[in-house]
Amino acid sequence: METRNLVGFEYLEASGNMFYGVDPRDNGRLPGDFMVADDHIVSLACQKAKDCFLTYQQSSLDDRAIFLEEIANEIEKLGDELVQRASSETGLPSARIVGERGRTLMQLRAFAGYIRIGNHLEPSIDTAIPDRIPIPKPDLRKMMMPLGPVVVFGASNFPLAYSVAGGDTAAALAAGCPVLVKAHPAHPGTSALVGQAINEAAKSCHMPEGVFSLLYDNGFSVGQALVGHPAVAAVGFTGSLAGGRALFDIAAKRESPIPVFAEMGSTNPVFLLPHALINRSEEIATNYASSITLGVGQFCTNPGLIFGVRGDELNHFIRTLGEKLAEVESTTMLHKGIAKTFAQRSVNMLNMPGVQLVAQSDEVNKENLGRPMITTVDDAEFLKNPVLHEEVFGPYSMIVQCESPQHMLSCIEALKGQLTGTIIGDDEDLQNGELIHNLSQKVGRLIFNGVPTGVEVCPSMMHGGPYPASTDARFTAVGIHSIKRFMRPVAYQNCPSPLLPEVLRDKNSLGIARVINGEFTNKSI
Amino acid sequence: METRNLVGFEYLEASGNMFYGVDPRDNGRLPGDFMVADDHIVSLACQKAKDCFLTYQQSSLDDRAIFLEEIANEIEKLGDELVQRASSETGLPSARIVGERGRTLMQLRAFAGYIRIGNHLEPSIDTAIPDRIPIPKPDLRKMMMPLGPVVVFGASNFPLAYSVAGGDTAAALAAGCPVLVKAHPAHPGTSALVGQAINEAAKSCHMPEGVFSLLYDNGFSVGQALVGHPAVAAVGFTGSLAGGRALFDIAAKRESPIPVFAEMGSTNPVFLLPHALINRSEEIATNYASSITLGVGQFCTNPGLIFGVRGDELNHFIRTLGEKLAEVESTTMLHKGIAKTFAQRSVNMLNMPGVQLVAQSDEVNKENLGRPMITTVDDAEFLKNPVLHEEVFGPYSMIVQCESPQHMLSCIEALKGQLTGTIIGDDEDLQNGELIHNLSQKVGRLIFNGVPTGVEVCPSMMHGGPYPASTDARFTAVGIHSIKRFMRPVAYQNCPSPLLPEVLRDKNSLGIARVINGEFTNKSI
Repeated sequence: METRNLVGFEYLEASGNMFYGVDPRDNGRLPGDFMVADDHIVSLACQKAKDCFLTYQQSSLDDRAIFLEEIANEIEKLGDELVQRASSETGLPSARIVGERGRTLMQLRAFAGYIRIGNHLEPSIDTAIPDRIPIPKPDLRKMMMPLGPVVVFGASNFPLAYSVAGGDTAAALAAGCPVLVKAHPAHPGTSALVGQAINEAAKSCHMPEGVFSLLYDNGFSVGQALVGHPAVAAVGFTGSLAGGRALFDIAAKRESPIPVFAEMGSTNPVFLLPHALINRSEEIATNYASSITLGVGQFCTNPGLIFGVRGDELNHFIRTLGEKLAEVESTTMLHKGIAKTFAQRSVNMLNMPGVQLVAQSDEVNKENLGRPMITTVDDAEFLKNPVLHEEVFGPYSMIVQCESPQHMLSCIEALKGQLTGTIIGDDEDLQNGELIHNLSQKVGRLIFNGVPTGVEVCPSMMHGGPYPASTDARFTAVGIHSIKRFMRPVAYQNCPSPLLPEVLRDKNSLGIARVINGEFTNKSI
Repeated sequence: METRNLVGFEYLEASGNMFYGVDPRDNGRLPGDFMVADDHIVSLACQKAKDCFLTYQQSSLDDRAIFLEEIANEIEKLGDELVQRASSETGLPSARIVGERGRTLMQLRAFAGYIRIGNHLEPSIDTAIPDRIPIPKPDLRKMMMPLGPVVVFGASNFPLAYSVAGGDTAAALAAGCPVLVKAHPAHPGTSALVGQAINEAAKSCHMPEGVFSLLYDNGFSVGQALVGHPAVAAVGFTGSLAGGRALFDIAAKRESPIPVFAEMGSTNPVFLLPHALINRSEEIATNYASSITLGVGQFCTNPGLIFGVRGDELNHFIRTLGEKLAEVESTTMLHKGIAKTFAQRSVNMLNMPGVQLVAQSDEVNKENLGRPMITTVDDAEFLKNPVLHEEVFGPYSMIVQCESPQHMLSCIEALKGQLTGTIIGDDEDLQNGELIHNLSQKVGRLIFNGVPTGVEVCPSMMHGGPYPASTDARFTAVGIHSIKRFMRPVAYQNCPSPLLPEVLRDKNSLGIARVINGEFTNKSI
């Protein structure tokens, strides 16, 4: 396994510190000493990305699609070595890693298929009217072009699907942007293996050198330097609010600010409506005990807040959920830091005024476990204390007992931006659209009678939302439309046809759907 | 004419300072003492915008379209009073104001037509696959929703088309966002009249109170307070780099950052290629003398930098352009501040090393004139001195004499982001795509054999570009797609059909084109 930084096609030695992967299940040191990138490596990688941008963006859609597919193939070829390493570095079971690998390959292949169709180019043509009065109308043609080199930050909780060859990388490469990945320090070996796969694919597909680089750091300085570098045009990040905001602030303070799409998680509020609680309290409790503890609660869509109207039904639900949850075994979290923070923050919640413990899994004397916990509080206390609105990343959820349905609306009003909001209700509960409508103001995705965990990768998915769920509610991090984060429109006025990009010429040789004088059509002009 | 601040449907007195309109042609005071909004007014206007947002966004597309059309009708009804006042406050001739009014009405009506079609909602539906292995696929449906209250800053150089009822206001209202306009202090009377028109339209169309407010300030504090207010969700601005960047910085530092689309102008570089210069030097010079001085150079697309390859042909062009330009009379600029800054900055350019005066119009002893000027410099000096890259807002252009076509490419590389880039070339000049391709990296719009002034309002227009042309190259400020700045996607998962927004229900009762399981169709499910 290569432990040096990958700068274009070259693996380079760095002069400074080293770090290594750790198995969170036993804190054991894993093979490989990874080199923290230095200033020279950061500059060189950015320069190579910039230098190859013109060439890479001119690659044909088909060549770029083949490149994405070849990355998927190369990742598959890594076989069990990748699964084992990812599992060792994250504590996630092999089956989960295999599933996540499937999603990662699917994402790469979905982007390949999408860019072959060409809809992401959004071609629009308004033909000239030379004899228009009082002045002639020029010929205008517009399409989306790639922004430039994109920095992607690997996420700890998706070591494959939102890491080196994850959704952000796939979207940026599909758009025509070179990618610079800052590997997550908790899974350097997984990153190295996937980086090798991308490198092999880039070389065998004759992509220009610089289209991909992979840099290591177990601190913050490499990431900060990348986001501040003048060659960089955009940033994709999935992680904590503190981390995402820090990168956003660096980007906003640049001489030339650049867009940062940071997906920073959420408490994913759930609203239990009265009839549903009467009719299927047990079923809901069972589903939620699973959802809260799925993947040791380490999903950005983990349900961290559950709202219901105080009373016997809610009490029954709370009891049932507590019982189910207490049966769930504590399991290993992604890394020491996450486990420590989870333990601190969940216990800290218990020290807040009015917060009561409902249930907690048994204590087990083992490293880095996430011990599932449910707490409860009343709505008055919830509204008073902003700490209770914060995400506790891990297998934790707090049930907010509201005095009335009207008080539930006040809680919605007080919520910050969220990735998701869930409504559990029967037909009788859902007559009043106010709750749905108010909740839709705060979220990117509204879920009915389900759990927020599980993010379907499809065009109609929205994964993002008002701040602090993300830094820009206008974009999604999941699905083919996530490519929009990394593209910009360029218009051509009175451009001679042979000089136009192929997709904008009169003859529609690529067969891409275009809007021509207001009509959506596959025809040539 | 109302000189008080319009807060929702109410005109409110403010406690603080007053200011008045000035005729820049003679510095004469115009009627009307306008009240600078105070904190109470800012808060109240923001609160009203927030309070009405839920109601306004639920208005039907047709009701909202009628509202936009009614605004256009009410502006028309203002008749000559508006034209005279706008002309007095800006020094722009009545004919220009009448033309700009036409454009303003057209923009409002174009947005009305566009939202009736409904494509801006971008509906996307992926139906469920309940028996999918290993897990069922949920039903997901996504559409664009309005962001929330938008603050619009009136621009001095388009007192109608980019001011109170200009492109930003039309886009935001069309999206379903309430609008808070900060009137430009150079045309308060024009703003007041148009504000009245919008207010009348809002009332007669039964729009909710708060959908529109109009606030005055001849300083910066009202604008700053609006951008910082928690109820505000986005900002539209057209103006100087300093002004746009200041607002961007305030928005980025908020606890919840919000998107600012600031269009901040540009030097709009023009590249004169050798054969074109040989064949039609006179014609090009004539066109450019007009373009540089059109509207006293007060367009964000004014051609401020012209590049050519040193030699007899370029010398001839420079001479001809100088002669034509010297014939153009100096005319009144928009206001004292702009005229003063123009005079300072154009003269300052003459003091830069290597910069030579080519031509300047005759001096006339009159207030606030913009005296057209052409300078020239060689490419080596241009590359050395960043001051020469800055915009001089007014009838000014600098010809950069390049040693060779290769040196022209170096100049492109050194340019900052631009709204437009223009290539003047004959067939023989345009064989090499490198210049076109490199220039496309820096601009929002590429123009061939034309002038950058004149921004056609059509769907294929892109008016924006890489920083500092705008704060976000991914959006346009002109044309129907400018609505994208103010909308965000929201997904509904497994939502019972009657609870879905109408456009996402199985039955396509609105007849809007939707993407259903990957197919673009008008059909119902």
